[in-house]
Order: sequence, then structure tokens, then C-alpha cells
Amino acid sequence: MDKLEKMIIEHGEVREGNILKVDSFLNHQLNPDFLYQMGEEFYRLFKDKEITKILTIEVSGIAIAIMAALIFKVPVVFAKKTESLNLDKDVYISKVFSYTKNKEYNIMISKKYLDNKDKVLIIDDFLAEGNAIRGLIDLTKKSNAQIMGIGVAIEKGFQQGGKILRSEGYNLKSLAIVDELKTDNIKFRVQQ
Amino acid sequence: MDKLEKMIIEHGEVREGNILKVDSFLNHQLNPDFLYQMGEEFYRLFKDKEITKILTIEVSGIAIAIMAALIFKVPVVFAKKTESLNLDKDVYISKVFSYTKNKEYNIMISKKYLDNKDKVLIIDDFLAEGNAIRGLIDLTKKSNAQIMGIGVAIEKGFQQGGKILRSEGYNLKSLAIVDELKTDNIKFRVQQ
Repeated sequence: MDKLEKMIIEHGEVREGNILKVDSFLNHQLNPDFLYQMGEEFYRLFKDKEITKILTIEVSGIAIAIMAALIFKVPVVFAKKTESLNLDKDVYISKVFSYTKNKEYNIMISKKYLDNKDKVLIIDDFLAEGNAIRGLIDLTKKSNAQIMGIGVAIEKGFQQGGKILRSEGYNLKSLAIVDELKTDNIKFRVQQ
Repeated sequence: MDKLEKMIIEHGEVREGNILKVDSFLNHQLNPDFLYQMGEEFYRLFKDKEITKILTIEVSGIAIAIMAALIFKVPVVFAKKTESLNLDKDVYISKVFSYTKNKEYNIMISKKYLDNKDKVLIIDDFLAEGNAIRGLIDLTKKSNAQIMGIGVAIEKGFQQGGKILRSEGYNLKSLAIVDELKTDNIKFRVQQ
């Protein structure tokens, strides 16, 4: 998605440790028009997959997922990261390790909101090693729902998550794939 | 908002400790069409306030805020609850006590995304004692932005937050005010 690459070049900040900050439009401040355009792009990529539900994970996946959901006309379910006192006890649980936060945590969804009749599109903002996406895949499998596709805004192509997921046969589409991340040079993979 | 009251009666679950769970459309599973309609209602209520930015707090405020932002055509900034390693160091910070999670935590926004030129609409999903909203007000004041209004989806009218905010002169609008919360009886306040 050309516009996403342009936004990353214009507004992204490269930090030590292969960190790409896109706080000005995606991770702290949110640009609603642009997020809607990302939703349209996900719709273009997955519209023939008979999606019944979009699955994402709090926090940064929610805004993109709800925009896509508005266009797909299906509900979003977002996996929760911490055990809130309010959360239903009847849940699917997976473990995820976050490099950003440097800790392992549980993610969970209530069994009420995902089941074997669902055809799921998984959406998230970033894909690096793929830990969060792995957790969402695991939750989906536990629910016996079908995974129809995985849509990611920004994939770090120099890390292994995307490569492995594709080799396993997942229909993974990333709106931008960053193959090189330097303060003075961000290189994107050319995609069809 | 009649439809919100109807959704609460049909899908809300009342739990001990004055907890109202609306996980099926607002706090875990998200209904994008309905959230868009809530956004339209916030627009109707605050459209003449020259809003330049919508401020909310992760997690549950984000989906409502981004829908409203799509209609207002302004950015959302969401306050972050935990100190991520990635977060900018140059931030406004406030403390908030959460009854749901039974702990105090910091909320923060980067100084980059809110300043004295902004006219802010604060949006959140719930208002009970008003702690989260207080935190957002405090962050806004620290940025020297103007608070033009506060929009809440569900206010617990039997708790004090809303009453006190209105007595202080804040332009607070709640799409539904629950005055009585029992498993067999949810009473809403009649609003103009």
C-alpha cells in the first residue's frame, strides 16, 4: 500500500533495536481517514473469503480492525491481555511473549464470541517474530473456527514471523513490508 | 440514545458490585455499525464545538473514539496505561485508580499530540466515579488544550462521577445513564 509506505517514511521514527515507531498515525495518535483506507485495503485483499469475524488483540490492533469491520460488516473480537476482574471465566487462553514489553503474558477471548461456524480474518498492526499472531492463531484453533486470512499493517520482513507463516500456508497479506530499517534508510519489499 | 438502552437491556449482563458487562458489542466483541452510530450521536451532540482532537484512554475507549473521529474528521489520541519501552519520554502523566482492576496506574500521552491549540472532546465507554475521565481532564489541562466536551457511552447515574463533573461546569453528555442496575431491572434516566 503506497500510502502506508509514504506515511512510514514521512512520520515513522526508527529507534535502536529494530523499533519502528508510528505513533503519529497508528499507535498513539490515530488518523481515522487513513485507518479507514487501510480497512478498505484489507477488504480488497480478503473480500472473497466469506469472513464472519475479525480477530485482533488489544491495544493497537483495535482501531485498524474496527475500520476493516465497518467495511466487511462483521464484528470484531479483540483478545485481552490481562485477566480483568470483569472478564468471563469461560475463555480460550494462549501465552504470548512480547519483545516490546519483554515479558510473557496471557491472551484470552471469551468462548461466546468465537466458534466453529466462524471464518476468521486476523488483523494486527505489526508482525515481527509473529508472537502475537501465533497467539491469535492458537485461540482461533482452540475455538475450531477457520482461519481465512491474516492481515497486517506493517511487517518487519527482516524478522522471521511472516516468512514462517507463509511457509505454513497461511494467507498472510501485509500492507507494507519493511526489509531494511535504518534511521536514514527504510527499504520496502515490492509486492504485487 | 434509545438504541444503546435497547442494546444494554438485550445484551448487557449485570454482575455483583454494580458491574454492567457489555462485552457482546462494546468491551470485547465490537459491533462496528452500532459503534459508528454512537459516533454519529457524539457528532450530533458536539458538532458546534470546533473539536480538533478526540482524547480517550486504552482499551475500551478506542473503538468508539475512532468512529466518532471518522465523522468529526479529527485525530484520536489515546492515553496509554502502562509504561511501554517504546513510549516517548516526553509525556504528560496522571494517576488513575481503577475499581475494576483494583489498582492505581499511570496514564500518559506524548506531548507531541496535544497542545494549547487543541480543542478536545474526551470520549470514554463508561463513567462511574469518573476516575479515568479525571485523568484525561488532568492530561488535557497539563497540555493547556481546551476541554470542549466529554462524551460517554454509558454513565452509571447512581455513582457520583457524572454529577460532580456537571456541577463543575463540564459539558458532559452520556448516551445512556443507568440509574438503577439490578439483574431483573435496569432503569435509565430520561434525557432531552
